[in-house]
Amino acid sequence: MTNSDRDLELIEENFRDIALLESIASTLGWDERTGLPDEAGEYRAHQITLLSGLIHDRRTSPQLGERLARLADSSVTTDPNSNQSVTIRCLQKDFLRHSKLSKSLVEAISNATVRGEQAWAVARPKNDFASFLPFLENILALRKEEAAMLQVGNQTLYDALMDQYEEGATVAIIGPVLNNLRQQLVPLVQRCAEAKNRPDGATLSRSFDIDQQRKLSRWIASKIGYQFSQGRLDETDHPFCTSLGPYDHRILTRYDANHFNSGFFGTLHEAGHAMYEQGLPKDAFGMPLGTAVSLGIHESQSRLWENMIGRSHAFWSWCFSEVQKYFPGTLDDVSGDTFFRDINRVEPSLIRVDADEVTYNLHILIRFELEQALLSGDLQATNLPEAWREKYTKYLGVAPTNDHDGVLQDVHWSAGLIGYFPTYALGNIYAAQLMDAAREQIEIVGNEGLDVQIRRGEFSPLLEWLRTNVHRYGRQMNPRALVEKATSKAFSAAPLVKYLSEKIEHVYG
Amino acid sequence: MTNSDRDLELIEENFRDIALLESIASTLGWDERTGLPDEAGEYRAHQITLLSGLIHDRRTSPQLGERLARLADSSVTTDPNSNQSVTIRCLQKDFLRHSKLSKSLVEAISNATVRGEQAWAVARPKNDFASFLPFLENILALRKEEAAMLQVGNQTLYDALMDQYEEGATVAIIGPVLNNLRQQLVPLVQRCAEAKNRPDGATLSRSFDIDQQRKLSRWIASKIGYQFSQGRLDETDHPFCTSLGPYDHRILTRYDANHFNSGFFGTLHEAGHAMYEQGLPKDAFGMPLGTAVSLGIHESQSRLWENMIGRSHAFWSWCFSEVQKYFPGTLDDVSGDTFFRDINRVEPSLIRVDADEVTYNLHILIRFELEQALLSGDLQATNLPEAWREKYTKYLGVAPTNDHDGVLQDVHWSAGLIGYFPTYALGNIYAAQLMDAAREQIEIVGNEGLDVQIRRGEFSPLLEWLRTNVHRYGRQMNPRALVEKATSKAFSAAPLVKYLSEKIEHVYG
Repeated sequence: MTNSDRDLELIEENFRDIALLESIASTLGWDERTGLPDEAGEYRAHQITLLSGLIHDRRTSPQLGERLARLADSSVTTDPNSNQSVTIRCLQKDFLRHSKLSKSLVEAISNATVRGEQAWAVARPKNDFASFLPFLENILALRKEEAAMLQVGNQTLYDALMDQYEEGATVAIIGPVLNNLRQQLVPLVQRCAEAKNRPDGATLSRSFDIDQQRKLSRWIASKIGYQFSQGRLDETDHPFCTSLGPYDHRILTRYDANHFNSGFFGTLHEAGHAMYEQGLPKDAFGMPLGTAVSLGIHESQSRLWENMIGRSHAFWSWCFSEVQKYFPGTLDDVSGDTFFRDINRVEPSLIRVDADEVTYNLHILIRFELEQALLSGDLQATNLPEAWREKYTKYLGVAPTNDHDGVLQDVHWSAGLIGYFPTYALGNIYAAQLMDAAREQIEIVGNEGLDVQIRRGEFSPLLEWLRTNVHRYGRQMNPRALVEKATSKAFSAAPLVKYLSEKIEHVYG
Repeated sequence: MTNSDRDLELIEENFRDIALLESIASTLGWDERTGLPDEAGEYRAHQITLLSGLIHDRRTSPQLGERLARLADSSVTTDPNSNQSVTIRCLQKDFLRHSKLSKSLVEAISNATVRGEQAWAVARPKNDFASFLPFLENILALRKEEAAMLQVGNQTLYDALMDQYEEGATVAIIGPVLNNLRQQLVPLVQRCAEAKNRPDGATLSRSFDIDQQRKLSRWIASKIGYQFSQGRLDETDHPFCTSLGPYDHRILTRYDANHFNSGFFGTLHEAGHAMYEQGLPKDAFGMPLGTAVSLGIHESQSRLWENMIGRSHAFWSWCFSEVQKYFPGTLDDVSGDTFFRDINRVEPSLIRVDADEVTYNLHILIRFELEQALLSGDLQATNLPEAWREKYTKYLGVAPTNDHDGVLQDVHWSAGLIGYFPTYALGNIYAAQLMDAAREQIEIVGNEGLDVQIRRGEFSPLLEWLRTNVHRYGRQMNPRALVEKATSKAFSAAPLVKYLSEKIEHVYG
């Protein structure tokens, strides 16, 4: 065995342990959000904090740094495009980033965010921003400290945080993208508001038995390709997807007995995330080639299934009669077209996750601007509710009358996720690009259109295309390069705008 | 700060981390038995194995041994009865035991038992002992190896294993206790079989809506004093109770739509275990004074609530009308007395956890004898099903026609729990002793009998008595000393036999 082989082996062992510890922490997180006993929160935070320290030790051990440096200079990395070179490069980048942080800060952030999520879960139903504020202030201070340690070159503090979620994303890049998108979307929203024949969404707020919604969710998740043998579907306050191991990718949704959307589209969304995880190379679990490349790409997978498939006319021309069967008597008087128009209704609203595809990106712009102001110090956390209402009025023309539907609506900040929201808009953009490419390429290969398959409830060709062109690469390329390779096109928001315009045309005439 | 203070502080830190890691492993175990995805088993075993290694390192670090030795020689332990002395003594004993084991063996056992449980869960429904056999053989070999490392003085291999669950238990002590019990119980079983007026248990096998059973279980657990703010109630194949932290003691039960007992009595049983854990000193969680003293004492708490309270006439004179309300129409034609007699029906049967209070101990005797034979090599695992049938025929006069109701019925061996069953009989014995003492002492204090309280559905005086006389001590005394202190009587099976004789008298006349 050469020295390099030995180095590689020890590195793999180290990251196998890190992956085990991280997936254990994910298990604790999943458990926490599916019914942790009321009094158990503090100890749970200690458990996760301990794990975060163990993980940090293993991510930043000097021996790891030395081994990576030796390998980077060895014949193992002669071919810069080999899997080993890619792996070493990614690990070196991670090592450098993690090594900038002190263990005590990592543990403090871990503890603060677990406690923050708990405080948020209590505060939101009570509409009690004041009780959440000290947790948020603590989290902001810690993340600011972290950003200052991570900052390189001319990165802003916010850039340093965003980079963790989407490599290379900066305010200078994302800002114009979002503002440009806004300029193109606002006229669309306007057009919908002025249309003569507008869907009112009434069919969605009938009474939908929750047990039947559960069955429907399981059915549709399985139908689009989510594998239940490698996951499960549960319920929680704020839907999410989490990986507890290479064969354990769980999704969580929430049901509303008086609204169709949250259960159904929440499930499609999270299943989209989970199918990406299920499609990553399992033998590289915990290693760069077995890890999702970015949150933008992750979100492209969820939004693609939720919206570009799940809100498409082709999908509903197949699915509507199935859905009718799940709720006997409830939708008998409704036509598939009416339902399709209702689920595509465009209307400025307060809750991001329930927003239509057009206004959704404006919600992201609001988060993006508020986060920057919080990090730069231009905005104090205590003034967030007010700033929130101002931004909503400005960009969406609506404003919440309470914090439950305002600043407390998302779990993200309570979990320390700052700089994360922009990846949601990137996800929409990537998804539209990928969808165009998939439609084009599947058409050529299968000699019949993707839409024809969707109209038959046949999703495996699309999933297969995503597996081949996105999932299987892990972190082999950066997110933009991945999309460019898959689509043979440069990064562009144009396909998203085109897609939305056509949808509006179809729905609003 | 003195050197001793420093040693104490570092030891506490070490055990705080061990408790965190152990409770994390318990969380993974809980998750595994409440719906782990089919394909996730192997990785889950790796996760738990990693934790077991981290725990072993911390339990056996040479510095820990040195610190404990220094403290044992210091002024900290001058008073042998002080909390600190007790703590140091327990920790030294644990340290010596754990230090005899190699990390690789500990990890191998951890892995084998997690995989074993998974194999058992698959094999049992399929009645497939052959598929489980290799797992069992592996577990037996590993536990034998462990026993050989642990053996001290003239302990048998089996003694060495039992000692882990019940300090000081040996075949020489337990054997005569169980055999003596058998001699006294067999005539009782005989007497029931020959009684003229025998309950047939028919009211128990009506149809009991499972959702209503769930509600009933939550209600009764809460009523007897189980705190849901520090726990939760879920469902699983083989009911159990597990602690995920000082404020997180979960219970799991199973429901049978066509039988009343498993859901209701399973809940009482597990709640009894959990209430012990909820009553341990929380500030000493993970330290000897905050840890259950033995499995025998643990079982005394579950059996006391399940049987001595939950199958008592006083309990049902209060509870029956409540139970009737949970199942409208189902038990309207039944009298409380009939129901009381049905739940106390004595009849040799195949499934231990469903056994009546009299024959239950014979099931334990069978496990006890089989386990010794397996460890000594007198019995090969492959011959277990046959040996099982022989013993059942001999001691209970019934024998299973399949392994699902035979050797595969209990999860224990798959989880490596060998030498554990005898603590169940000890639990029955302790419970009867404790019950006598509680009845006597509560009678004096409250100026009204315990039974009067139970007939009113008032359980807090009894729970308070158990908290004061059992729970709060942790490992302060050994199990027998604890019972002797609480009852002012020597260890004896006589109260159990007396209790059972009176019950038979009441039910069978």
